[in-house]
Amino acid sequence: MTDEHYMKQALNEARKAYAIGEVPVGAVVVWGDRIIARGHNQVELLNDSTAHAEMIALTSAFSELGSKYLPEGTLYVTVEPCLMCCGALHWSKIGRIVYGARDDKNGYRKYVKENEAHEPQHVFHPKTQLTFGILADECGQLMKDFFKERRK
Amino acid sequence: MTDEHYMKQALNEARKAYAIGEVPVGAVVVWGDRIIARGHNQVELLNDSTAHAEMIALTSAFSELGSKYLPEGTLYVTVEPCLMCCGALHWSKIGRIVYGARDDKNGYRKYVKENEAHEPQHVFHPKTQLTFGILADECGQLMKDFFKERRK
Repeated sequence: MTDEHYMKQALNEARKAYAIGEVPVGAVVVWGDRIIARGHNQVELLNDSTAHAEMIALTSAFSELGSKYLPEGTLYVTVEPCLMCCGALHWSKIGRIVYGARDDKNGYRKYVKENEAHEPQHVFHPKTQLTFGILADECGQLMKDFFKERRK
Repeated sequence: MTDEHYMKQALNEARKAYAIGEVPVGAVVVWGDRIIARGHNQVELLNDSTAHAEMIALTSAFSELGSKYLPEGTLYVTVEPCLMCCGALHWSKIGRIVYGARDDKNGYRKYVKENEAHEPQHVFHPKTQLTFGILADECGQLMKDFFKERRK
């Protein structure tokens, strides 16, 4: 299966968030070719400002596997992780992270040190691979639509 | 009540973690002069690498107050927060953070951008106040004892 395939699944999760008035971010964790965990933003529903899609998907994946590390897993998330989710992904030792749209306002790149090439430091586990930009337009458009509607 | 008083309560939480073989970090959330939430590291117990003392205490505090923000709260934690907990504290809009011992290995200062004075950026909510070094020796010693024992 392609990255696009799994990102579409993460987008489905994001749309669930949108439908209940949550900032539309969605995530899935893939192990082999199987989706073992899903999550969408539930900050309002749970009254918990840490209930981001990635946190929910990670905790669900740990529970599913009975393991606190996910070295062979891939997390797909529609929007660049924030600092908290970036730190959680670090601890999870996840094998690969794929995110869609960049988030200049709340994404982790805003906060973490840069390397000599002026790129954000690799703050994940050293073995974690990072890919971004998959279905970025769709992922970002969902966010734009949400905030545009809220401002009405 | 003094910062030392509440940090001793956080140390009690850290000792609970120590007693069950968890990295000994403890936290309490204070609202007014009342402790409304407690947490200690439960990464091994829950098989969840994100189950840090601060995350548990924050989620418990949100639940206790029925609010996703803690602008009048203070979080006491025995050890400098990691990047994940730093991000979670950002989202919580907590009024004040007090930590004990610094953590050069896993603390957030290792990762976040520095300001012109070469100090770590204030990555918390703009109104959040930060204090550290309260009972730092006791908080740090508990960590040293734990890892020394584990290396035996």
